[in-house]
Parts: sequence; C-alpha cells; structure tokens
Amino acid sequence: MYDIIENGSVSTPKGFASSGITAGIKASKSKDLGIIYSKPPCRCFGVFTKNQFPAAPILVSKQILQENNGAIHGLVVNSGNANACTGKQGYDTAWQIVRDVEKNLSLPQNSIVTCSTGIIGQQLDLSLVADAIPEACTSLADTDIHFAEAILTTDTVTKTCAVDVSIAGDRVKIGGASKGSGMIHPNMATMLGFVTTDIELPEWFHETYKEMIEKSFNSISVDGDMSTNDTCFLFSNNASLLKYEHLDQADQNDFREALQFVLNTLAKKIVEDGEGATKCVEIEVVNAVNQSVARNIGRFVANSKLVKTAIFGEDPNWGRVIAALGACEFQIIPERVAIEYAGVKVVSSGQPITYNLERIEKNVKEVSYTIEIDLGMGNESARVWTTDLSYEYVKINAEYTT
Amino acid sequence: MYDIIENGSVSTPKGFASSGITAGIKASKSKDLGIIYSKPPCRCFGVFTKNQFPAAPILVSKQILQENNGAIHGLVVNSGNANACTGKQGYDTAWQIVRDVEKNLSLPQNSIVTCSTGIIGQQLDLSLVADAIPEACTSLADTDIHFAEAILTTDTVTKTCAVDVSIAGDRVKIGGASKGSGMIHPNMATMLGFVTTDIELPEWFHETYKEMIEKSFNSISVDGDMSTNDTCFLFSNNASLLKYEHLDQADQNDFREALQFVLNTLAKKIVEDGEGATKCVEIEVVNAVNQSVARNIGRFVANSKLVKTAIFGEDPNWGRVIAALGACEFQIIPERVAIEYAGVKVVSSGQPITYNLERIEKNVKEVSYTIEIDLGMGNESARVWTTDLSYEYVKINAEYTT
Repeated sequence: MYDIIENGSVSTPKGFASSGITAGIKASKSKDLGIIYSKPPCRCFGVFTKNQFPAAPILVSKQILQENNGAIHGLVVNSGNANACTGKQGYDTAWQIVRDVEKNLSLPQNSIVTCSTGIIGQQLDLSLVADAIPEACTSLADTDIHFAEAILTTDTVTKTCAVDVSIAGDRVKIGGASKGSGMIHPNMATMLGFVTTDIELPEWFHETYKEMIEKSFNSISVDGDMSTNDTCFLFSNNASLLKYEHLDQADQNDFREALQFVLNTLAKKIVEDGEGATKCVEIEVVNAVNQSVARNIGRFVANSKLVKTAIFGEDPNWGRVIAALGACEFQIIPERVAIEYAGVKVVSSGQPITYNLERIEKNVKEVSYTIEIDLGMGNESARVWTTDLSYEYVKINAEYTT
Repeated sequence: MYDIIENGSVSTPKGFASSGITAGIKASKSKDLGIIYSKPPCRCFGVFTKNQFPAAPILVSKQILQENNGAIHGLVVNSGNANACTGKQGYDTAWQIVRDVEKNLSLPQNSIVTCSTGIIGQQLDLSLVADAIPEACTSLADTDIHFAEAILTTDTVTKTCAVDVSIAGDRVKIGGASKGSGMIHPNMATMLGFVTTDIELPEWFHETYKEMIEKSFNSISVDGDMSTNDTCFLFSNNASLLKYEHLDQADQNDFREALQFVLNTLAKKIVEDGEGATKCVEIEVVNAVNQSVARNIGRFVANSKLVKTAIFGEDPNWGRVIAALGACEFQIIPERVAIEYAGVKVVSSGQPITYNLERIEKNVKEVSYTIEIDLGMGNESARVWTTDLSYEYVKINAEYTT
C-alpha cells in the first residue's frame, strides 16, 4: 500500500536533502552539478555498468563503498562530462571532487560517492567543480527540485518519483530521480538512477536490490548500448526509525512493492523520453523456462533495429519479431511459439493465423502497446520496455559533428 | 593468381548455365525466379542461417544435400516470398517446386536445391512458380545475365563476380551472385550467395568453405538481424577436369585465394548496397587471442546503433567505439587498447591521445575508411564491413505500412 507523492524526489524521504546548480561544465550553462546529502549515515547499494571501460567515478565509488559502507552521507554528480577514458588524471579528479564535498559538509573521508555523465575522453575541469561545490552544499534543501535537472544531458524532461508507504502503522518514504540512456556527440549520455529511503535496510538487501534493478533499469532498451557510466544507487538511512529486518513478511512485501514501483517508474520515464522516441512498447515474454531467459529474449527482440523501425512505422510486422526471436541465443521450440501483437493474436503453434488486420493497424497507432511472445516452454515471464527507432533518433545521433 | 572476368556470374564456369525470369510472385512484375543448372553433377556446399525459424526451402535443401550430395545439378530460387513461417503447406510447396524443376530438366529426384526470399508468413503461390518453371528451364544459358536480377528484393543493383584462376597450367573459373541483407515490410529480405566453380572439390572442403564464409558473408553487418532464409551455396562440378585434391599446395592456395576474393566481393557488394547506406566502413580488430573473438568483437562494434549513426554523421566519435568495445561479451584489457579512427590514432594504452582533428574530420567524409581496434592481447585479427545508419534506412524500414 503506497501513495504517490506529487513532485517528490530524492530529498523527499526523512533526513535527506539535495541541490542542483550550474558549475559551468555544460557550455549551455544549464544545471550540471548535484548533491544528495543525508544527515544520518546511510547504507548505499550500488549497481554499476558492466562496461569494461568503467569511468573514473565508478572506480572511486566502488572503492568507497567497499571501505566505508554503512557510513555514507550522500553523492556528488556532475553532467556535461563523463570523466571516462581519462586515465590517471581523471581518476584523481574524481577523488578530489569527493574530498571537496566531504570537506565542505564537514564529513569524514570516504562518506560521499560520485557519478558523472557527459563527454567521454575529455578531462573534467576540476576547478569549475571545486569552485561550485560550496554553493551546491549551502543550497541543500529537503524541498529541492533542482537535483533532477542537474543530472540531465540529452533528456528533454526531468524524471522523478516518490511514494509514501504505510508500514506497521508508520510511514516510510522512497524518492528517486533518473536520467536517460542514449548517446549524442560529443556527449556520451548514461543511465543514472538515484533512490533514497528513510527505512534502514540490511546489507543483504543488495541481492534483492539487484533483482529489482533487473526488472526495471535493466529491462529497458533505447539504443541497446551499455555506457561506461551507468549507475543506480539506493541510499538507505534510518530516519524513519524503522528497520526492514524487523518488519513482518507482509510489510516487507509492501516495501519491496513500493520500491519496485519507484524503480519501474524512473526506468519507464527514461524510455518515454528516449532520443527521438515516439512510442513506448512493452515486450512481454511469457512461459519461458526462467525469468533471466525471458528478460534476455525480451531485450534481444526489443533491441532489433528492424523491430524498432516497424514500431516507428506503425507497421504490425510480426515477421520481424519471429526473425529476431529465432536469432536469439536461447533455444526456442518454434512449433510452440505464439505471438500477440498489439492485442491481436497473429501466430499460434509457430504458424501464422488469420487475424483482424484493421484492428491491429488501429492498435499500433497508439503511443504504447504490448507485443507478447509466448514461448510455451515454462512458467516464467518478464517485461521489457522499448522505444521505436525514428528519423529523430538518427538526427540526434548523427547531426552533431565535432 | 586470378583475373577478374568482366560481367561474369554464376554461369561463367564451365558446364554451368543460369536463367532469370518473371513468374509474377512480385507485384512489381520484375524478375523473381532463377535457376542455376550444371550438366555434370555437382558437389554442393551449403551454409545456412542459424535462425531457429528456418524457412521451408532450407529444410528441403538440407535434406536433399544429406541424401544425394555429389549428384546435385543446380538450384531453383524465387524472390518476392520467403516461404518462411508457412507450416506444412509451405514445406510441401518447396518440395513441389524442386520436383517440378527436376522433371522439366529430366533430372533424377533430389538433384536440385532451393532458396526463397521475400515476404514472411504468407503462402507462396505454387501455381505461379509451376507455370513459370518451363520458361525458366528453356531460357537457361551460359551467357545469362538475368539470374542475378531474379534474386533481388530491396537491392538497388545486381551483385556478381567471376574470376579465372591459372592453376597447373590450366584454367579454373569461379562465378557468383549475391543479394542483400536488410528487411523491408512486407518483405523480409535475406542474404543469399551462390557460387559456382568447375574444379572438383572434395567433401572435406566443406570445413574450408565454412571458414571462408566466416571471413566474408559472416563478416558484414547491415542491420545485424539474421533472417530465416540466409543461405550460401557453392556448387562444384568437374568440367575443368581438375581435382582440388590432386593440386599441389601452391595451387590449392591460389584457388582458395581466388574463391575468398569472389566471396568477399559478393559480401562487400551487399554492404555497399545496404538499405540507406551512404558509407562502407571496415572495422579491423587486431591482436586478438583468436580470429573468432576478433570477428565477434568486430561484428558487435559494427552493429552498435551509436557507432553506425556516428559514421553516418561523419563524426569521428571514437568514444562510441570504446563504449561498444567495453560492452562486448569478451574480456578486454582496457589499458592495452589502441584505436586508429579513419587512419588517425586516437587512443593508446586505453587512454585518449592528442591527435590531428582536421585530418580525421577530412577522412571520415570518405565513402569508406577503416576503424582499427588493437586489443593488444594476441596475434590474430579479423575484418568486418559495416554500413552507417541513415535517415534513409529508417525510411525504408518504417514507411512501408501494411
């Protein structure tokens, strides 16, 4: 049982504050430096890109979490420069930014984690960030609305979500902000997600969090490319005085359901704001042998250029779904496959069936619909959200020359 | 040592003839039925799609090759309909077409293989094909230029290549035709390659042929999707009276070199004619642990939408190459990676280096150039050819509504 908090964000849960200001990293002079701060210490759960060229702030944050988790007080994030592929100098810069924030907030060392998003392969100007940190610290507020803006690159709208969960006669809050995936020269945009909560979560919640990220941030496809900077942080302080471990099963379920809703909402907002996107289509893979296979097949189909262009063209071309499905790395039993395209069953037992073409043509004109792939091989399912591939996508990604 | 034969095609080698006519499968009334015929029996080497929804003609051809290889007399191929996802009826249709051609050419059963390309999920009209087969058989000629046209779907040009190889004081000929990859509604186009030669090849040449296909047809990326119909056939009769097995090592090498040239040429012509393609870029992966890893990494990078849009935008955005490389499934050692983008070294030891931006900007305006990725992990390399991702690609693939 949870209620949506209108205009809520990362500073909504008790004990949290945030800020977002202009440091001057972006040539546009829009906001590009954000801080999340929790007065009570936090346990911080991080899920990072598996890209083999992780950016400097990822290396730094991983080390801080390893050494000092449970005593984390927040995050500093910049947009406009990814601090990726920047070698020793970039690594030192990321550390210096962390130290500057800690010093300005009178915090012990290794209590602030960090993220960056923006241009790849160019050094981040430390002096710009250092000069702006004092203002970012003094403007911290629990009613802040600027943080979500400071993390954007090619996104056209801010992406936030917050809920209030009724638990054990008490209230727990969860708040979050995200920014989109998709790249644009000279920026390399990145998927970032930041979630805060005032319930105390145990260390072992990390595995649960990873599964929830699989179902949300790892179940979306804009361009299928995994950036050097993708990061999803969850900060948990104890300001509500509730401990997850002490809750009964039903309350734990309620909390997880609310957290999953926040994560899904932040992830879907990324898809809806995908570069050049005109559609947000759900690929649902059902009756798979397990969830991981279902999700991977969903992602594979969602990532097909031909499926994506068909969605853009409002063309119920289920043959492309079949072709993509057949090309995936997992074993399919063709004669068991059924496909429902935008609410209309088109394939049964691996063979095309007669269907109402007018109805399907009407349905694919909607902004969002579902393509269901029934594998007939098990009982597990997964949902993946994808955009179409439009002229605008090519334009955004091609027309910015150096 | 080989010479290119101008306007040569599949009928160029001794003993071969071909034809291409209009059967009426395509609404456009352009050519859509082709036959290759060899009077002497052939050994036929087939490499087929790994798509788990193979089209009916693939199932039929595989069975024929299994039962009767060494006594194959040719091929019948239609465009305009893929005969894929058509169930029992489609399977029977494919067999009937084979039988009709065998009968018309007075050949024993199981001596003709078959391919289809075009619309998926619609039954191929057997009567149209059956009615056209007599004409396709009577128009067979060793000077035929129509076969290459009859196999096209969204291709804008025919793709052929033939060479004359000097071997053991004698001449061997190799000829071929191909059609492009890329899909367009309601067609599902397909990669088809047909190569003929008048040297007698042994059964064990199949493994060699498969390796050569890896280096050619499996080293191109237009949209990264593997169709239900992809097929590459090599027909070998004995009309030159030469046997590959009897050649010395140097002559065998000469033959393989010539065959690889024909295969590479046919494959590269597909890339150059890729849907909406304005560029043909070579991704060269060097110093990998083995060729398979090198090729797979090359294909992965080549298939990135962000790398492809950067190529279209004439934008030397090597950061996208790094990001794609880091996202591949193979282990990379970032600090050993070097990248040369369009002839200009931009990354060394995993870090960006100072480079001549004007020179690189000039080079990426060329229609073709090379992006070299040096992994620094071994001694093996592979080349992959890719197109850009253009407005035209999206247009071709989106604007054809049902």
